[in-house]
This record gives sequence, C-alpha cells and structure tokens, in this order.
Amino acid sequence: MSIERIAILGTGLIGTSVGLALRAAGFTGGILGWDRDPDQLRIARARGAVDEAAGSTEAEAIAAAAGSDLVLLSVPVLSILDWTAKLADRLRPHQLVTDVGSVKRAIAQHAESSFGGPDQPGFLPGHPMAGKETFGAAEANAALFNNAVWLFTPFAPHPLTAEWRAWVSKFGCRVMEIDAARHDEVCAWVSHLPQMLATAMSALLAEHFEDSDEFRKIGGRALHEMTRLGASPYSMWRDIALANSENIATALLALEQELAHMRENLKTPQLREEFAAANRFRLQGPR
Amino acid sequence: MSIERIAILGTGLIGTSVGLALRAAGFTGGILGWDRDPDQLRIARARGAVDEAAGSTEAEAIAAAAGSDLVLLSVPVLSILDWTAKLADRLRPHQLVTDVGSVKRAIAQHAESSFGGPDQPGFLPGHPMAGKETFGAAEANAALFNNAVWLFTPFAPHPLTAEWRAWVSKFGCRVMEIDAARHDEVCAWVSHLPQMLATAMSALLAEHFEDSDEFRKIGGRALHEMTRLGASPYSMWRDIALANSENIATALLALEQELAHMRENLKTPQLREEFAAANRFRLQGPR
Repeated sequence: MSIERIAILGTGLIGTSVGLALRAAGFTGGILGWDRDPDQLRIARARGAVDEAAGSTEAEAIAAAAGSDLVLLSVPVLSILDWTAKLADRLRPHQLVTDVGSVKRAIAQHAESSFGGPDQPGFLPGHPMAGKETFGAAEANAALFNNAVWLFTPFAPHPLTAEWRAWVSKFGCRVMEIDAARHDEVCAWVSHLPQMLATAMSALLAEHFEDSDEFRKIGGRALHEMTRLGASPYSMWRDIALANSENIATALLALEQELAHMRENLKTPQLREEFAAANRFRLQGPR
Repeated sequence: MSIERIAILGTGLIGTSVGLALRAAGFTGGILGWDRDPDQLRIARARGAVDEAAGSTEAEAIAAAAGSDLVLLSVPVLSILDWTAKLADRLRPHQLVTDVGSVKRAIAQHAESSFGGPDQPGFLPGHPMAGKETFGAAEANAALFNNAVWLFTPFAPHPLTAEWRAWVSKFGCRVMEIDAARHDEVCAWVSHLPQMLATAMSALLAEHFEDSDEFRKIGGRALHEMTRLGASPYSMWRDIALANSENIATALLALEQELAHMRENLKTPQLREEFAAANRFRLQGPR
C-alpha cells in the first residue's frame, strides 16, 4: 500500500506549501487541490503545488477526498472539525486523513469515534510548527517546513501513517510524538501566547501613538520582532483561541502577573532576579 | 576646528563598535580607549577599535578625556551621570562630550549646569538605536549602526557637534532630532517595553517548564523572537529602569491591561477588533 494520490483541502499558505514541499521531495503521484476560495486554488495550481483543481464546493471536496489515498486538512481548526465529520462516512478503511491544525485535543477527540476502527478510515493528527505572519497560496514556500518540528499526537495505527511521516521528514522536518493534551498546553506557551502578545503589542502601539509615526522611525529590531505576528489573520486565530482558550488564558494571566511584578520592582533589586532567570533561560538556549 | 583625538570611555559592545565604525568610515585620528574592566579594553585594542589603552582607573579616564577633542561616554546610564559630573571641571570649552545612553532627559538635565556655557565644555546627548542581546567588546561590530537611527536631543550648540553628526552619518545611521522628554517616552514603548517583555517571557517560561526542554524542541521563530532579549544584562538595564521608570511603568501597565482584555475576550467577537487593529498597525509597516 502506498500514497499515490493526495487531496489537499485548503490551499492557503500551509496547504500550498505542503504541495510544493511534496514535489520538491520527489513525490510523483497526483495532487488534487480544493479551496473554498477559487483564487487561492488558482494560485496553488499555477505554482505547481497541485496538479488538479478539484473545485470549491463541498461536494467537490468530498469527491476529491473519496478519490485519494491521503487527505490533508489544511484549513482553520473549526473547519478541520467540520471536515472530519463530513468525510468519515465517505472514506474507506485504506484511506488516511491527516491535518495541520494548531490545536490537537479537540481534533483528536472529535475524530475518535468515526476514524481508526476496523471499518473506518484512518486518522493522524498532525501539526507542523511552521508558518508566518502572512497567509495565502502566494506566500507558500517549499522550504517552509525546513528545520521545523512536525508534531503528531497518538491515534489508532494505519498502514499509510509511516509513509506520510516519511514524506514529512523529507520536507526537512523533525518528526516528534506528543500527547494531545500536552501538545495544547505547550503550544499555548510557545506559539499561542507569542501570537496574542504580538497582537496586543501591535494594537496597543497603534492606539497609543495614533497618527504619529515617530515610533516607527525610531523602533528597531526589538519592536519589529515583538509586533511581526500582529499581521496574522483573525480567521485562523479565532479558531485556536476558541479551541484552546483555557490553556491560552492560563498563559496570558501568568504573563500579566509577571509584567506587574516587574513593573512594581523597576527600582528594586528584585529586578535583578528577573534578569538572572531570563539570562539562565537564554543560556540554556532555545535555538 | 576638528576632531583629531577621541576618547572612548567604556569599550563594551557599543564603545568598541563605535571605534570600529570610526575606522571603517575613514577616521584617521587617535582613538584612546578606557574601561573599568582591563579585559574589555584589551579586546577592544586587539580588535583595532582603539589604538591606545588609557587604563582602567578614574584618574586615567580623566587624563584620556582631558587630552582628547571628543569624549564618548559609552557606559551604563548612571555611570554617564557620574562621568559628566567628574569631567565637567577637567575639560575646556573647545572639547565636546557626547554619550550613547538609552535615557536622555536625566542625562541632559544633569549636564545642563556644567556644560554648554561660554567657559564650559560642550555636550551633545545622543542615543544610537542599535545594540543586541549580547554584550562586551568581543561582540562589537563596525556594521552595528548600519541602517539604525542615531537620536540627538537639543543642547547648547558647540563647534564640534556638526562634525560628530557627520561621522555618525558615515556609520550608516539616519540622524534624528528629538526632544529629550519625548525621547524617553517613545523609547519606553519601542525599546524598554520590548526588553522588559522579553525578560518577563524568558523568566516565566523558565519557571513554568522548569527542567523540561519539550518547549525548546517545539518552539520556533515566534518563541525565539519573543525571548531573544532575555539574554540582555541587568547591569545595563537596571540604570534604564531607574532613570525611566515612570514611562516604563506606564507602558507595562497598558500592556497588562491589553493582555487582560484579550484574555477576557478569547471567545468573543471583541478578539476580532484586536486582530483588526494589529493588522492595521502592521500594514502601515514599521520595517
């Protein structure tokens, strides 16, 4: 058994990048693309990420999935939940559905009853830790996953799982297993919190400086880094905020408290402890 | 009148980078270096940033300053205050002192009574918006100021001011005038707040994840950007926190409130407004 035909449902930044990465890694099978937005699909096809445009209606998505060995769900988190519900009855046990959603517990739980059983299609919850503040097929890049981690959370075994993981490795990813609940907790801190923070910083600066662009002229790399993700789309993050709200709220509250602690100690030696802890963290070196 | 001999008091990251940038820009005069830490001075000299090591005692610093046309104070903010007090009586009207401190109101006010008068040496408050999370002469770089803004705040005119500004331009900097109080306010938002935030994020992650390095494996560019400045030294930031605490506290409190607002609205349409404001901010594009 092998993956000869792949349907990519959602040819935005990630879906189109997967198509390009598959071709760059030597995948010679068929790649069908589907997107609700015909423009995104047109761009994905023009860039060679998909070689067949399946259309933009629900029926066309289901038909594309039904005719493929592997279905990649590269749409926002709540849409992934929708598609798993819609596809389960239309697919057969030899077919595998995998996703790229930034939240894993809700998706894995949702798929549990209708995927992975003896007469059911397979499912593999996945999450590439890659992306950027821009979006859409035009921004896609075969190298987007290079050196990134592609996380998978446990699900019932399926014959195509190993092959898909091998393709992901060929994209230049380090494949890593993680429990779904732990995934959602860790991602709240290392990915969702930074996003909320960049959005908050950007919104705050816009409000504080209103029409003055003085701060834009003066701000350097630190300002740029702290606000880069402010460009990220609400359409994607709304779903993540909804599906992982408890973990994100915990991380946000902890950060609020930490900032208040620093604010109250700007003139006390306690500030030294904060810098020392931060220095130790950086010395241990996340890349 | 022209600048033929420069004393750099403080040959750390910034002072040594200025020496290297002067040489790269074609300065052929003498550069004396002084640092309290003989190791830093040795490195600065070995790298060619200074061609004469003036020593590490207070008397040696004063002698180096007294024998120079221009004195650059590239030490932490409170030390800049100390040196302006110590040097004022030892210098003559043809000599110009300039600094690179991240806070300008306290420094300009401090220098006001003893610099800039008819029988007093000149002073020019300056602040290059450049630097990085590392420190020390070994990390210095002639290109550190390339494409950065070098801010100057108003002070009594002096014959050497134009020449120093011309050298700064040759480092690749855009020179910009700004009122000292406004400088401290804008820098609180675009530089000091990002630093406190990176320190808070780093200290918080260190505490939350303790010995687990799971988050280091999973975290990508966003985590790296949000914590990069966590490596910054307390020795430098203590002085900034003290000398600009009111502005920094205002910015920190505003951010705390913004984060709380987002936390309370993770599941409401209000989150859309935050993303929309952030998107607009980024579209207007600070580099």
